[in-house]
Amino acid sequence: MRIARFSIDGNVAFGAVEGEGPDGLVLDIIKGIPYGDFELSGTKVPLTKVRLLPPVLPNKVVAIGRNYAEHAKELGNEVPEVPVAFFKPTTSVIGPGDTIEYPSFSNELHHEAELAVVIGRMCREVPRERVKDVIFGYTCANDVTARDVQQREKQWARAKGFDTSCPLGPWVETELDPTDLTIQATVNGEQRQLGRTADMVRSIEDLVVHITEAMTLLPGDVILTGTPAGVGPLNVGDEVAVTIEGIGTLTNRVIKRG
Amino acid sequence: MRIARFSIDGNVAFGAVEGEGPDGLVLDIIKGIPYGDFELSGTKVPLTKVRLLPPVLPNKVVAIGRNYAEHAKELGNEVPEVPVAFFKPTTSVIGPGDTIEYPSFSNELHHEAELAVVIGRMCREVPRERVKDVIFGYTCANDVTARDVQQREKQWARAKGFDTSCPLGPWVETELDPTDLTIQATVNGEQRQLGRTADMVRSIEDLVVHITEAMTLLPGDVILTGTPAGVGPLNVGDEVAVTIEGIGTLTNRVIKRG
Repeated sequence: MRIARFSIDGNVAFGAVEGEGPDGLVLDIIKGIPYGDFELSGTKVPLTKVRLLPPVLPNKVVAIGRNYAEHAKELGNEVPEVPVAFFKPTTSVIGPGDTIEYPSFSNELHHEAELAVVIGRMCREVPRERVKDVIFGYTCANDVTARDVQQREKQWARAKGFDTSCPLGPWVETELDPTDLTIQATVNGEQRQLGRTADMVRSIEDLVVHITEAMTLLPGDVILTGTPAGVGPLNVGDEVAVTIEGIGTLTNRVIKRG
Repeated sequence: MRIARFSIDGNVAFGAVEGEGPDGLVLDIIKGIPYGDFELSGTKVPLTKVRLLPPVLPNKVVAIGRNYAEHAKELGNEVPEVPVAFFKPTTSVIGPGDTIEYPSFSNELHHEAELAVVIGRMCREVPRERVKDVIFGYTCANDVTARDVQQREKQWARAKGFDTSCPLGPWVETELDPTDLTIQATVNGEQRQLGRTADMVRSIEDLVVHITEAMTLLPGDVILTGTPAGVGPLNVGDEVAVTIEGIGTLTNRVIKRG
């Protein structure tokens, strides 16, 4: 099931995406929140009539750096011996169609297409064989990065945590085998990144075990699983799109921070 | 005014701390939330009858590393050219009297006494001369750190973001000049850290400007301003106390993670 979060006439709700094609999609409004028990209301609205929001409101976003060998290499880094884990704040999260604001303190903004794991249950110290039970689904993410700032500042709170640096969407796919999906980024329709999730250095199971050894994850929390090779610049006016097989496409335009 | 957050009989509220001495303190219950307009209800409860909670529920905690020269030196680090900013997640926040759980993946847990700045207004790109307007008050923090993990892992999400690694409290002092306060940590009553906030490399104004250049801060968000020299080990059973002049003492015991 594909679960979106949206606003219509000032109300916010979750809905199950049904139908096919850009104009044929409808949202069946969900009663309650999708992490627990929920029902479909049967009330349907066309996707063209709503504004899609970030499909989850995470309490935290835990991101993993250098999880594809070819990407680590392109930036002159080794594959790390332990996963590189960092946070993106909730104030960085935006939804599909929202604008990425080019930060004033950077001259080198990069896209990073990533598979995002959405957590469905409060969990800590999750054993490998239980990881599938705590995952709600998957969405597309763009770990937008001020590369010059990342190179200057030892910890990445500003380089990867500025407002609008975490586009998520368009919706959460809850039925998906994430182990070998194509993941790509285009800028203005030109392909820039292309990879397969099978090439992750650490699997989703490894990452959930590693993170929850240290910290509790809550329903709606998000794990970004790293980006494949091909990262590159974003400029004001660019349209960047992250597409993951079986999920969909997350599109955002870059504007000057106003 | 000293503003605490507390629970009594299953209800959670904010209260203004009045009176003197360990047994003479009372809480005047606040109507509404303290970041906006609020009134004191006049209904008072003795502090001994309530459980103090973390005095704020931050959306994010932004922490600054190596902001006292003597501390940077004791760990063999230079004072960085730009502030080292990182996040601690909301799941790491605990209150006064709560227990710090020794993480299973570390053998070297350290205390770091810090002055915490509590934000009172949503803000971004705050000019230096307006910084005082966005600050709600100040509290004590302990940036509990798995030092061995911090040395192994390039980004500090696990080393400084594990559950219970961010004690805050006991309350927020809203009327305080933070520029030259003594800050100390004791372990089992023995002094370990002693410094003065006047020795910060970057001032609170510098830090708010630096952080809000990149990201929006929300009411209740917290900035940890770095720790003075004297950091050292915590062991299971230890009682660690952070005391800041003009605020009070934040005490927590270390237990084995169960």
